[in-house]
Order: sequence, then C-alpha cells, then structure tokens
Amino acid sequence: MSTAEKILQRHVESLCTNARPAARTVALLPDAKRRAALKAAATAIAAARSAIEKANALDLAQAERDGLSAAMIDRLRLGGKRLDSLIADLRQVATLPDPVGQVLEKRTIAQGIKAEKISVPIGVVAIIFESRPNVTIDAASLCLRAGNACILRGGKEAVHSNRALATAFRAGLKKAGVNPDVVQLVQEQDRALIPLLLSRDDALDLVIPRGGEALIKAVVACSKVPVIKHDKGVCSLYIHAKADLRMALSLVINAKCQRPGVCNAIENLWVDQTVAKSFLPALSKALQKANVEVRADGRARLMMPNAIRATVEDWTTEYLSLTLAVGVVDNLDDAILKTETFGSHHSDGIITRDVKAAERYLAEVDSACVYHNASTRFTDGGQFGFGAEVGISTNRVHARGPMGIRELCTYKWLCRGKGQARE
Amino acid sequence: MSTAEKILQRHVESLCTNARPAARTVALLPDAKRRAALKAAATAIAAARSAIEKANALDLAQAERDGLSAAMIDRLRLGGKRLDSLIADLRQVATLPDPVGQVLEKRTIAQGIKAEKISVPIGVVAIIFESRPNVTIDAASLCLRAGNACILRGGKEAVHSNRALATAFRAGLKKAGVNPDVVQLVQEQDRALIPLLLSRDDALDLVIPRGGEALIKAVVACSKVPVIKHDKGVCSLYIHAKADLRMALSLVINAKCQRPGVCNAIENLWVDQTVAKSFLPALSKALQKANVEVRADGRARLMMPNAIRATVEDWTTEYLSLTLAVGVVDNLDDAILKTETFGSHHSDGIITRDVKAAERYLAEVDSACVYHNASTRFTDGGQFGFGAEVGISTNRVHARGPMGIRELCTYKWLCRGKGQARE
Repeated sequence: MSTAEKILQRHVESLCTNARPAARTVALLPDAKRRAALKAAATAIAAARSAIEKANALDLAQAERDGLSAAMIDRLRLGGKRLDSLIADLRQVATLPDPVGQVLEKRTIAQGIKAEKISVPIGVVAIIFESRPNVTIDAASLCLRAGNACILRGGKEAVHSNRALATAFRAGLKKAGVNPDVVQLVQEQDRALIPLLLSRDDALDLVIPRGGEALIKAVVACSKVPVIKHDKGVCSLYIHAKADLRMALSLVINAKCQRPGVCNAIENLWVDQTVAKSFLPALSKALQKANVEVRADGRARLMMPNAIRATVEDWTTEYLSLTLAVGVVDNLDDAILKTETFGSHHSDGIITRDVKAAERYLAEVDSACVYHNASTRFTDGGQFGFGAEVGISTNRVHARGPMGIRELCTYKWLCRGKGQARE
Repeated sequence: MSTAEKILQRHVESLCTNARPAARTVALLPDAKRRAALKAAATAIAAARSAIEKANALDLAQAERDGLSAAMIDRLRLGGKRLDSLIADLRQVATLPDPVGQVLEKRTIAQGIKAEKISVPIGVVAIIFESRPNVTIDAASLCLRAGNACILRGGKEAVHSNRALATAFRAGLKKAGVNPDVVQLVQEQDRALIPLLLSRDDALDLVIPRGGEALIKAVVACSKVPVIKHDKGVCSLYIHAKADLRMALSLVINAKCQRPGVCNAIENLWVDQTVAKSFLPALSKALQKANVEVRADGRARLMMPNAIRATVEDWTTEYLSLTLAVGVVDNLDDAILKTETFGSHHSDGIITRDVKAAERYLAEVDSACVYHNASTRFTDGGQFGFGAEVGISTNRVHARGPMGIRELCTYKWLCRGKGQARE
C-alpha cells in the first residue's frame, strides 16, 4: 500500500469509527435536543459568516483560474443573501415535526402479541455531492432532524466553503452538547477514497449520491452500501386529444422554461395527432419567444418548420437547458408506450379534460410522480409540503420521488407480550 | 470472451430482455387475474407431481453421491406431504389481499394539487437462494401476488427440482393467459453468471439473496442492483432484575430449542446479576435436559459449572444449533450495550415485570423486532399475519424484519391538478 493509500485508508477508518457511536447518540436524543442542536448550528454559522465568506472567495478565485463556466461559478457562490437563506432554512428544519418515533402501524400478531411499527433513524448516511456548497448544510440538517449521523463528501471546487460550513455546524453541535461527529466532512479530496468508504457496509447504512450521471454511476459501481440514487429526470408532458389547449400551452412553457436546469423540467413533449394541427403552430411561436430550441419528429416538423429533426438520442436526453424534443403520437396508448420507453420514470404528466384517459395514464405510467393537468415542476419536497428535501429519489425501493426527513427514517417492530412462546 | 462466458452473457441478456415486458404486463393485471394465475400455477404443479418427484429423486441421488449431510438432504426432499403443503401454500397466497393500488397517503400539495401515494409493484426482482427447492415456488408466488416479475436462481443441489417446479409454474401461467416470463429460472449453474446478472441495474430493480453468509457477501460485493439482505440472526434475550423467572425459563427454552436452525432463534442470553444466582442453576438443568451446549462468561460459569468458557467470538456467532452463549450483565444499560455491540440487530427481547425498564429496552435496542415478554421466534411473516414471507430483511431501508407481499411493493405519487404551474 502506498503512503497516499494509507492516508486515505486511515481517514476512512476514522470516519467510520466515529460515525456509529455518533449515530447511536443522535438516534436516542429527544426531539427538543435535536431541535436545539439545529438552532445552535444556525447561530454558529451566522457567527462564522466572515470566515465562510472568505473560504468561499478562495473557491471562487480557484474556479476563475480553472476557467469554470459562469453557471458553475454561480452555483458555488455563497455570500450575502444566499448565506442568509441557508441560515433561515436551517432554522426552518428545526421547526419540522419530528419524523422519529411515529407509530406507522399497529397489529395484533400471533397469540395476541401487540406489535407496533415505529419510525426510527436509518443510522449512518453518507451523502456524496457536487458543486453547490449549501448541500453540506441541507444534508447535515435533514439527517440530524431525522436522528441520523452523516458523512458528507462534497465536490473539490467547493472544498474551502464546505470545510468552513461544516466546521461552524460542528461548533454549533458542540455548544448544544451534541457529539459533533454526528456531522463529519470527508477531508481528503482524492476520488480513490470513495470506493474505500463505500465498501464499509459495516459502518454505513445508506449512501445518497447527488450529482451528474458519472458520479452516480461511479457510486453504484463500487458501493456495498445500499444506494438511493438521485439520478436524471427525462420528464414529459402528453397533450391528449381532449386537452384544454390553452392550459396545455401554459403548462408546457412552465414545465420547460420556469427553471430548465432541474430534473423535474420536461425534456420530451408528446402531442396527440388529433390536436397536433391546432396546437403545434401556436406552441412553436411560444417556444420561439421563450428561446427554446425544438427537436421534432417528422410529423411534428410539418407544423413546426423551424424545428431541428430529432434523432433517437433526443428522446432519452436530459437537456437541462432550453431544448425540447417534440413528437406526435397516435393516441393515449402510444403516448404511454413512448413515455415508458424513453423517459426515466421521474415525473410525467397528461393534459386532458377526459378523466377516464387521465386515470389510465396515471395508472399505467410508472413514474415516481405522475400528473394530470399540472406542471411536472411540482416534484419537489418543498412543493409536496415536506418542509425540505434531500433530493428526488429515482430508486424504486424505500423512498421514491421527493425525499424529506420522513424518507430518512426506517422502522422497527416493537412487540409486547405476556410470556408467549412459539408453538 | 471465452465460449463459456458468451453462453452466460447470452443467457443473462435473454433473462433481462424478457423480464421488463413481463413486469409491465403483470403490474397492470387486475387483482382477479393475478389470483387466477396463482391458482392455475397450483393446479399445474399438482398435475406435474410425478415429474417433480422424479426430478427431486435425481437431486437426492446426486446429494447422496456427493456425501451431503443428512440435514442438507432433508432440506432438499420434496415428495408427498411437502409437495401437498407447497401447493396449499400457493393457493393460500392467491387468497391474500391485493397489496397493489393501496392508497398509502393523501395530501394536498402546492396550489391545491391533490396528491395520492399508492402502492405499486417494484418491477423485476431477482432472488438468489440455496438448497430448499420450495423457495422457487414461495418466491415466484409472492412476487406475482405483488405484481412483480422475478428471476430466480436456486442452488445447484436442487437444480432438477427447481427446473421441474418452474416449468410447471410457467405452464400454469400460460394456461391462465399470463406471460410465463413473469417467472424465469436461471438455467446456467455457473456462479460467474451472478455478477453478470447483478450488473444489470437497467433490467433489475431489486435483488434478494437468501442463504449463508458467503452467498450474501458475494451478492453485495458485485451487485449494482439494490440488495435487500436476508442475513444472519444473532438474537438474544435479556433476563432483567424484575423478570418472572418461570416465564424467563420457558421463553429461553422456546427461543433456543423450538427450532434452533433458524435466524430468529436466540444465540446469546444476558442475565442480570441480581437474578443470576436464583435463575442460572435452574436454567442450567433445563438446558442440559434439552441437550443445549452452554458457552458462558466467568460470572455465569460460577452458577453453571458444566458450561464451556465463552470466547469473544461466541458472542457474535450464529450457531444455528443447540448451543447458547450465556453472560451475566450488571444492569439494563449493560444489557442494552451488549445486545447492541454483539447482536446482529435482527430480534432481541427483554423479560421483565418492570414496564419502565421494558420500554427503555424497546426504545434503545435497535433491532428489526424488539420483544417484551415474548419469544424472539415470532419474527416471521406468518406469525405477523402477513400470510407468507419472502424472508426476514436485515436491511435498514425499505423493508426491515419480516417481508411479505406488501414489502415487495414500492409506491408512486399520483397528482391531480387543474392546470397549476409552478410559480
């Protein structure tokens, strides 16, 4: 083993050794104490404002030197109002109802034993993310609210900002009398650390990767720990034969343009052939006005002469930009088939006045969130009333779709008897 | 790539290609049709009885030639009454309430959109198991009841039996007009197939390994697909200072001896120092009578002179046999600490008349099932009233503890709006 490897190995060992007792402590803390710890962390971050802004300036300067895009640099920025709202969000998480200890189910099992299914923290959660440094605080606060310990590994572009934030958060925990190892930040930026960490299924209970496809693939490939992916969204709307076309127009524009760089924005639009002629020319104009580039199939291009011809790749691409793939479909069945074939099962919607058609679409489209007459942009923990979210799960098990503090819990069965033995 | 590798690769490709459309079909089948398919499978297995028994005889003969233990050979056996009860169980699964399409939660989200969280099948479930051929039918029937397609890979000792069972099951499906690929059996026994199959996270949604530690480790090490482990049970009872000692004696004997080879039998017993003197001599006699070998710590051996001295390994060993590790603990805290440190977080119990102590134990012991005054042997889908079980999950996410048809479902959000766009 090289010296570099030894350093990584030792760091992983220390993270894992500290995490389990910290998880046990925080799992058993009463609600009031977890709330107080979050408030103390918010106060500590406010007090460390100048240190955090200095650290962020270092990251921004490095990003300039490295020639990162303006969008990337903007995502790194953490001064002024952004720091204010980060602190406000943190205080808000403290006000969320306790997700731990909730009775999820009661049943009388064999021989009259009373069983109660109650929510408990998952334990140790690793979160691996890119660029935006505020994720450090989001993830730490949501994990703590749900009684979990976390190990955070942010992107190298935000290394100074993340350190300053985590240091302040841990200082707050200490002040509140809580083991600061409830929140640990990975200190070594070497990517070789990730497989070492994720092989430790003895010490970690869950890993959540948040970032681009490459990051998620890398995590899935090397993890022995259960992974909840926050993977790409190839979302769509389908304009049914009986759609209110004014509503359709407004929802397509909203779902594509209101914030194109996010996973719940649409990338594909399917238009029923019976309304293609009446809908597409008006849509074409509206999209042009909104600076949306259109990739269309042969039938759609007849009514959208400015559109580029779509290739097969277009239907499965997450543009994350003002680009939209438009196709004409034969009918509801065809729309469901294409949504299922090309989409990523994240968020999809139908626009129609026909309730029967809508219900078939809702039943048959197998996505985390399926919409009738609403924008796909609502797939979001905040919009769902979860208070805050770790992200949007694209897994099919445990947590699917918006993931809040409830989804950071698991459960256990408490069984109360009177001496019953198995016969 | 060698010819052997090409054959495996082609087989995996075919399993994966068939599974997704089959999963889609079965997910959309109405309840009555899924019930009918299960009944048809039961009828087909009854009709194929002689073929199944012939196949089983081949496996038994091979097992004799290979010198397998009597216990192993017994687990392979599938004739007569065992086949009757397998068919009866299959018919019983058809009578379980439909776990699919249940409304798990309703909430009004942003701007008055009505969101409904409903249960849906997970999709394609791979189950990798050892020896007992009846798992083929258990797994197939539970997956189908919950609207999932499955890919089954049984142990090589049961290869003929598994093939005969799967062939009959698929014939039943065909007769009921259901795509037989809802249940696929891996045909190649080469272990090299497993990593190839489990790298296909595009085609599989979940893998459940059932078997010994080596199997589970191998699956976790190579899987890109989410894994729900059915891992070992190092379960315990704690005899508290205020225990009813007659109840304690009967529950220790039940939890250890009623069926020692299963995961919910106890391996460790913790006895409070205040009752050690009054409890251990009587226990010693009772265990001797039941042919249980005792491994005890220093304090326990003072009252159990026949016991072997326990080593550190004893406290973490799943004996699966008539062996019990016995230790004396200082108090409730010590008992909780030792249960948490050495146990596998499967099933643990406290025996006491002191409700306060019991509630602390229930709250602080972090196991899938925690008992007060009852045997740990109740951790079982049948005992919990789930009708049937795929097994006992030792994962911390999604499904924890007994896993029935409900735990073979995930959910999706249906969102019904009136044209709402995100602001």
